[in-house]
Amino acid sequence: MYALIMAGGVGSRLWPRSRKQTPKQLLNLISEQTMFQEAVARLDPLFKPEQIFVVASADYVPTMQEQVPQLSPQNYVVEPCGHGTAPCIGLAALYLRHLDPDAIMAVLTADHFIEKGEVFRQALFAAGRLAGQGRLVTLGIQPSFPATGYGYILRAEELADVGDVEAYRVKRFTEKPDLATARKFLATGRYYWNSGMFIWRVTDVMAEFRHQMPELYNQLVEIDAAIGTPQEKEVLERVWQDVENQTIDYGIMEGARNVAVIPADIGWSDVGSWATLLDILPGDGEGNVVTGRHLGVDTKRTLVYSPHRLVATVGLEDMIVVDAGDALLVCPRDRAQDVKKIVDELNARGEDTYL
Amino acid sequence: MYALIMAGGVGSRLWPRSRKQTPKQLLNLISEQTMFQEAVARLDPLFKPEQIFVVASADYVPTMQEQVPQLSPQNYVVEPCGHGTAPCIGLAALYLRHLDPDAIMAVLTADHFIEKGEVFRQALFAAGRLAGQGRLVTLGIQPSFPATGYGYILRAEELADVGDVEAYRVKRFTEKPDLATARKFLATGRYYWNSGMFIWRVTDVMAEFRHQMPELYNQLVEIDAAIGTPQEKEVLERVWQDVENQTIDYGIMEGARNVAVIPADIGWSDVGSWATLLDILPGDGEGNVVTGRHLGVDTKRTLVYSPHRLVATVGLEDMIVVDAGDALLVCPRDRAQDVKKIVDELNARGEDTYL
Repeated sequence: MYALIMAGGVGSRLWPRSRKQTPKQLLNLISEQTMFQEAVARLDPLFKPEQIFVVASADYVPTMQEQVPQLSPQNYVVEPCGHGTAPCIGLAALYLRHLDPDAIMAVLTADHFIEKGEVFRQALFAAGRLAGQGRLVTLGIQPSFPATGYGYILRAEELADVGDVEAYRVKRFTEKPDLATARKFLATGRYYWNSGMFIWRVTDVMAEFRHQMPELYNQLVEIDAAIGTPQEKEVLERVWQDVENQTIDYGIMEGARNVAVIPADIGWSDVGSWATLLDILPGDGEGNVVTGRHLGVDTKRTLVYSPHRLVATVGLEDMIVVDAGDALLVCPRDRAQDVKKIVDELNARGEDTYL
Repeated sequence: MYALIMAGGVGSRLWPRSRKQTPKQLLNLISEQTMFQEAVARLDPLFKPEQIFVVASADYVPTMQEQVPQLSPQNYVVEPCGHGTAPCIGLAALYLRHLDPDAIMAVLTADHFIEKGEVFRQALFAAGRLAGQGRLVTLGIQPSFPATGYGYILRAEELADVGDVEAYRVKRFTEKPDLATARKFLATGRYYWNSGMFIWRVTDVMAEFRHQMPELYNQLVEIDAAIGTPQEKEVLERVWQDVENQTIDYGIMEGARNVAVIPADIGWSDVGSWATLLDILPGDGEGNVVTGRHLGVDTKRTLVYSPHRLVATVGLEDMIVVDAGDALLVCPRDRAQDVKKIVDELNARGEDTYL
């Protein structure tokens, strides 16, 4: 089994800390370690360093190699540019298949929080066993609230022939629902959050690409033929220009048969916005989550990130204050998703300094 | 007539910009000019520079001389330490009486905003005429809302023998009222805000000190005897240690007879907190008052002061965000008075860096 850590995102809702040059996964948002460092560290001892692969754009690779020196440069799959998770996974699958035709790949993320490392590794191990039977396995997260920011997985009957592993056949993948729909999902007790983590044999996922995404499959085949030749880089870059953006959920999972979900109580969060840090991180007596120096009067459930200057607040509740040195963000917790609008506006204005 | 600009305050509600070394009156809060510079500039041409005196603590004098080079160093009355407005005015009156026994002094403030300079000078000129008749004159501000942060003046009958000046005998000075009381005051139409500006002959105010504050008066007499002698500084410092804190309102005005109020529609504000800047300064289309760079999404009626870094806000209404380089303040507009609690806490913790 091989781990494939996808590390291509930017995490623009984590602005002003996340920037093009320092995306979310390269930041120490949750602990002293960066999210990428945590993503690698939590695989030990289930995966040895030589079993861990990373797919990212070339820009990030030098920083990643600094942050995780135990990974060999050969274990990076470099995308010329990002086209969503389906092409990303397809490209990585090619390289893994070259390395080991029987490879099982665990598709993981570099920018999610997983509280319970041991439970996570147990789930991956169980998923590997199911994947070895030819199933496409996903880790499903028990929803703790009716989130509208996550995709959902509806389970069908429990799988009978998988030993002591709790696993279900998947009936349906669902895109991000509205609040009313999310509440209905939770009431059934049969929905999981889609963690975006998948475990399968490379041969099985390549077969799905061939059936469900034939255009991408043909592009992958063209690249595959060039791997190991002097033309490899040139072919990859040429073909990649024409690859269409698509997610693995929409491109493969929604249409695949033989999909299984393993409920994984691993303390997962996608850390999709500053608000999630208020959920994840332990607060002080007033529920404030503070990095740096904070002096609060009547301040509650407020996130303060300010390593370099004192932040004084009066009468704040459920707010977010993030100082990134050259730029400062202030917004209520329930507007944290809209930080993306700030980034969009900076993009529209060509304010590259802040991007 | 002489102007006496009292410049002794700190303005701790304007933290983190106001500090011990850079108090409110030395900051450019309203315009490019500092409040002290504005306070001097608005006296021209009614007062020549040699008629303008400043009372302040020694710490501030070098900065003040830099900011207002047209004032002679001899025109500074230096208080060894602040004891409230009554001793401050008494001390300045001594020096003015030495200079000119018939002096009329206009007691003014260094840290208030006055929108209408010409109307202000006309009011001072009229007040000087009334003061020449032996009255203690104050400028009353027509209240525009039931403020609880200002003292009030209740007028009695209009003065008949003062030519074309609108002036009233004062019935009563009132301390800061609660909201219900302030509303009642406004409903009568006979109350003014106490601007803290007074115009009188030095002989008249010294007579009031003698009658109403005999202990302070005796201390002033002791200092007076030393003025111009080699012991002047030593005596001042020794006597000043024993002077008790008192305001001119409580110490003199509330008990004085022959007090007159001139209604002064001068666009006055004491700039008592960051919230007042939202009232005074013109906002953009969303009512935001911005110094520096601000990128707002759904942000209204918010004060942003940040000359050195970008401030991005989402979903803020009626908020205050002030960056002073080493410290940052975030608070709702209606909690702006409580910024003083931050300063109190910094004092209690001995955080001199931020004071």
